[in-house]
Amino acid sequence: MNNDFAHSATSLTRWLKIRATPPSLQDNTADLDRLRRAVVEVVGNRPLLIPFNRTAKVALRFRRAGFTGFAVINDLGTTFELVDFVGGNAPVRVGVALDLGTTHLEATLIDLGDGRQLAHANRENGQIPFGADVLSRVHRADEPGGAAVLHQEVILSINGLIATLAKDGGISAGEIRALSVSGNPVMTHFLLALETAQLIREPYIPSANLIDPCHGADLGLVIHPSAPVWIMPGVGSYFGGDLISGIIASGLHQEEQVCMLIDVGTNAEVVVGCRDWLIACAGAAGPALEGGVARMGMRAGAGAIEHVEIEPGSGEISYTTIHSEKPRGICGSGIIDLVAALYLARIIDIRGKFRPACGHPRLLSTGEDLAFMVATPEEAADGRPVLFGQIDLDAVMRSKAAMYSILTTLVNQVGVAFGDLHKIYVAGAFGRHISPRQAIVLGMLPDLPLTTFVPVGNSSLAGAERALLDRGARDACRSIIRQITYLELNVNQEFMIRFSGSRFIPHTDHTLFPSVPFYNQD
Amino acid sequence: MNNDFAHSATSLTRWLKIRATPPSLQDNTADLDRLRRAVVEVVGNRPLLIPFNRTAKVALRFRRAGFTGFAVINDLGTTFELVDFVGGNAPVRVGVALDLGTTHLEATLIDLGDGRQLAHANRENGQIPFGADVLSRVHRADEPGGAAVLHQEVILSINGLIATLAKDGGISAGEIRALSVSGNPVMTHFLLALETAQLIREPYIPSANLIDPCHGADLGLVIHPSAPVWIMPGVGSYFGGDLISGIIASGLHQEEQVCMLIDVGTNAEVVVGCRDWLIACAGAAGPALEGGVARMGMRAGAGAIEHVEIEPGSGEISYTTIHSEKPRGICGSGIIDLVAALYLARIIDIRGKFRPACGHPRLLSTGEDLAFMVATPEEAADGRPVLFGQIDLDAVMRSKAAMYSILTTLVNQVGVAFGDLHKIYVAGAFGRHISPRQAIVLGMLPDLPLTTFVPVGNSSLAGAERALLDRGARDACRSIIRQITYLELNVNQEFMIRFSGSRFIPHTDHTLFPSVPFYNQD
Repeated sequence: MNNDFAHSATSLTRWLKIRATPPSLQDNTADLDRLRRAVVEVVGNRPLLIPFNRTAKVALRFRRAGFTGFAVINDLGTTFELVDFVGGNAPVRVGVALDLGTTHLEATLIDLGDGRQLAHANRENGQIPFGADVLSRVHRADEPGGAAVLHQEVILSINGLIATLAKDGGISAGEIRALSVSGNPVMTHFLLALETAQLIREPYIPSANLIDPCHGADLGLVIHPSAPVWIMPGVGSYFGGDLISGIIASGLHQEEQVCMLIDVGTNAEVVVGCRDWLIACAGAAGPALEGGVARMGMRAGAGAIEHVEIEPGSGEISYTTIHSEKPRGICGSGIIDLVAALYLARIIDIRGKFRPACGHPRLLSTGEDLAFMVATPEEAADGRPVLFGQIDLDAVMRSKAAMYSILTTLVNQVGVAFGDLHKIYVAGAFGRHISPRQAIVLGMLPDLPLTTFVPVGNSSLAGAERALLDRGARDACRSIIRQITYLELNVNQEFMIRFSGSRFIPHTDHTLFPSVPFYNQD
Repeated sequence: MNNDFAHSATSLTRWLKIRATPPSLQDNTADLDRLRRAVVEVVGNRPLLIPFNRTAKVALRFRRAGFTGFAVINDLGTTFELVDFVGGNAPVRVGVALDLGTTHLEATLIDLGDGRQLAHANRENGQIPFGADVLSRVHRADEPGGAAVLHQEVILSINGLIATLAKDGGISAGEIRALSVSGNPVMTHFLLALETAQLIREPYIPSANLIDPCHGADLGLVIHPSAPVWIMPGVGSYFGGDLISGIIASGLHQEEQVCMLIDVGTNAEVVVGCRDWLIACAGAAGPALEGGVARMGMRAGAGAIEHVEIEPGSGEISYTTIHSEKPRGICGSGIIDLVAALYLARIIDIRGKFRPACGHPRLLSTGEDLAFMVATPEEAADGRPVLFGQIDLDAVMRSKAAMYSILTTLVNQVGVAFGDLHKIYVAGAFGRHISPRQAIVLGMLPDLPLTTFVPVGNSSLAGAERALLDRGARDACRSIIRQITYLELNVNQEFMIRFSGSRFIPHTDHTLFPSVPFYNQD
């Protein structure tokens, strides 16, 4: 992880201290030309534009402030933009970093002067009523009026979140002078009101991967109208700015040794590489690993069973829940623990099928299928037992197989062995809660020393924060998307072959997982 | 005069032929990134921005056109802007050049492909009811709501003129993709809704001399909303874009030998220099030389007496009028002819006073003063004689003295003699209609061979046309305003001394005008 932030001096918006000589008959330089001259002295020769809708305001404010104060500059990458002039000695200098997730938005209010976090908030994505997942939302957007509604909902959600941040930070939303946004390609397209249909149709082409920064007013946001909005660029329809954020936040692009970054959601996105090269791929892993399984799956939230153990001898079960509340369901990390434990206790076999012969008292027939009762009705929050059935198990087996196949196809493509990986960064809620050991038992993650696995938390948000504060990070984004090679798994034969071999616990080739006990098929 | 136009290839807006490979699974570059790549191949590495309000449109049009057609690019100087994509083979490529005058607007519709003039039109400035001259308009703008009204009036005038041009050119106004505007600092400030009050108060500082090109939509113009609007930059409150246009149109900035450019209006603006240096000054000449004298003065228009002769022996008078209509008044060139003729016929003396002793039958007493009847009631359009009185004469004497003092102060400052001037370019209606010989007799222009004087017509419009078509001209504007030295006459002692000496015909020092007969004071 790279933590050498360079604050303020290179943030997306900058305040330059200006003390200009007032005009006189001997020095009749026009006000804006005088200001421009002073700014160029500080920022150098990169093109400096003054947007027309700021021209009169900037000129007047510079004059009224007595030609002394702070020029407010947006860093648009290849150009600078002079958007305001503020008198006084201590201007408010704040920006927001936003993780624009499909289900949740998470954001931080940041002091652009010193990089401090001033407030943190999250909320549900208001688009959910229009489609639970990106695919259904893209279909909805294709209906008459749909695209406008989905764009508006995401703007409303962001504005709501910003209002909360502003309140918590003790400022007004209009004082927020910069925003950086990290999201997947579909969310980014909705935000920018770009057409989404082509994202999900072969050959899966985004309208744009790299967007020039726009302004708060362009999007109808409640931040300052001329605040620049930086959108983390993507690489393709299935590899978006959230992943580039992951690379930036983990520092993968600066590593001397080959490392890997894994981000697991409904899609599993994986990058392998170092400072010299990067190769990425993404594949459908199914919702199982996010807790999206049939019966009692849930996202990581209060009352979710997050860790499960089964004593192999006695078959006795124990679990913990998030916030120690009574169990309501089971989340991704809980499911991985559970399936691994079921295997080690020989309640399921290497194909991931329940073994009625094991005779475990918690193994029940629901009529529809066999199911394991993780929590009893007495223990549960609502009196309904937390059950995990064969259908759920099948979904997990497909997901874990997809995950491992993606990883092996990628490293094989690159010509490195898993053992060559210096670190494996694991992003998101999955990375924060998962026990790598149980994922290895399942045959989902490669059998490596546990110290190899490094959780990186919400790296989508962390990347957005870096981009907000550090020009180096923004430049790195632009260079990463040029440099990265994207492997399309949807058309990859090798992936399909590997997928079949991965549909066992831990794998058909159990020599790949020397640390995991191998139980021959009954 | 420099006429080596470089058309289309470097015009303010450009159409780049693009034929991109369609996307595929093997080449999944996003649409806009694909287009951007194709554009950069043509235009090189200058920053290329896509304004947010064009992003979705450009992406969609590029895709719908089958990735083949024309990218529409605005040349903003230090950056390019990609604003549209047009399918088909022969896009309409037109722009407008505008001379934004205080009293009149004059404009041409130009084919940006080959530089041809497609239409020409002019109209009165709609601001006139709010003030006849710039000074009264600036005062009006300082009243509540005044600035908005004056801004709106100039926009309405421009839109009206553009509608005429579009109709005459057989296109719709929305197809006009570029506009270049040349005007004095006050008019430019009104156009851009910048504060004008400071232009007329010491130390006379414009809000801005150089403005980044804005867009049609920014100004509420009826041209294409993303058409760039290039504003000819100025140098100071009394030396604006219209003068820079004059330099560009005359080619003064490229001359090997020292030349001079004179633009006479209410203000006289003068530039002397060559390709290595330029020095400019401006001074109040009074309205007399524009026909703005008390009794029967008028601007050069139908029925204006534009040339006058008086037979020195017989004292017989003859004149011509514009469009040969019956006389309604007398314009600037007619006034200069008249005063010179009055002097040569000894009807006025070297101080510019009527000589009652001359006994000319047309010399009358009006009760108020003495006056010369240029046209009789029978000859005149409305039955009222065209009279030219002592008060008018005094105004002309002040104006011509100011003019000559400005010229002498400037050349003296530079250290050249009038005889060193290779050419004297004379701009505007004044330059088109004036007889240099009569202006020399008056002692208004220096006593040089008549071939030295070159009329350059409406050089404000000609400069705007050059800037519309040729990047070299726009670059030259930027470099001229950095390079030019502006001499402030309002605080110049030498000017005041020279002014006194110039208030005689031709001058107190008649050796300066060897070609003009000198009549000792009676």
